[in-house]
Amino acid sequence: MSNESVTAEGRTATDSGNRSGPIVLINCFTVWQQRDDAFHDIWFQTSAYFREQPGYRSLRLHRAVTPDARYRWVNVAQWASEADYQASHRTEEFRRLITQKGWDDFPNLPVLYKVVEADG
Amino acid sequence: MSNESVTAEGRTATDSGNRSGPIVLINCFTVWQQRDDAFHDIWFQTSAYFREQPGYRSLRLHRAVTPDARYRWVNVAQWASEADYQASHRTEEFRRLITQKGWDDFPNLPVLYKVVEADG
Repeated sequence: MSNESVTAEGRTATDSGNRSGPIVLINCFTVWQQRDDAFHDIWFQTSAYFREQPGYRSLRLHRAVTPDARYRWVNVAQWASEADYQASHRTEEFRRLITQKGWDDFPNLPVLYKVVEADG
Repeated sequence: MSNESVTAEGRTATDSGNRSGPIVLINCFTVWQQRDDAFHDIWFQTSAYFREQPGYRSLRLHRAVTPDARYRWVNVAQWASEADYQASHRTEEFRRLITQKGWDDFPNLPVLYKVVEADG
């Protein structure tokens, strides 16, 4: 049973209009500590879809060790372009995955970034 | 002139008590678009200190392209351990840098994470 309050649009970074060049998704999730396993399960299932999409490059899923973290889980994913990221979030399969029962327990904050400085 | 409302403790991820093993700092900054250059300048100046600290590994500074981003700048930094991260945030030099005029315009949310999944 899908949950209508969780929309595919609300789970997708707002379109910036700048479609080309490598982009980084930083997706911050609000998860109660007792729900870590449930979150990890549904995230993993949903990530399988993204790993198959054109332009997907890599991901790193992080869990907080800091005790008072506002966002206890953060996914940092590399995409070839914002065009690829947006296209993969406008499919029926994405809509089906993200509106499934379970996701509404885990609000998120998906934002796209450009790397300005890097070393190491 | 230092600003007493910005404390070194408030700028540092709360100690988790787990001191060993590689750790990732994800540090989310609130910056008005008009203040991007001022933020970048003071961040760059402060980052020079961290780049010299024992256990510092790398950083990637990100600027949002998503128009409605809550956190327009995010630094993702790798450290050899939380012990190294915490030690570098308890020096007089860190206290001097972070309480300087300018930083109080840019609230932040520093949290330490372990990587749970990685590919690509």
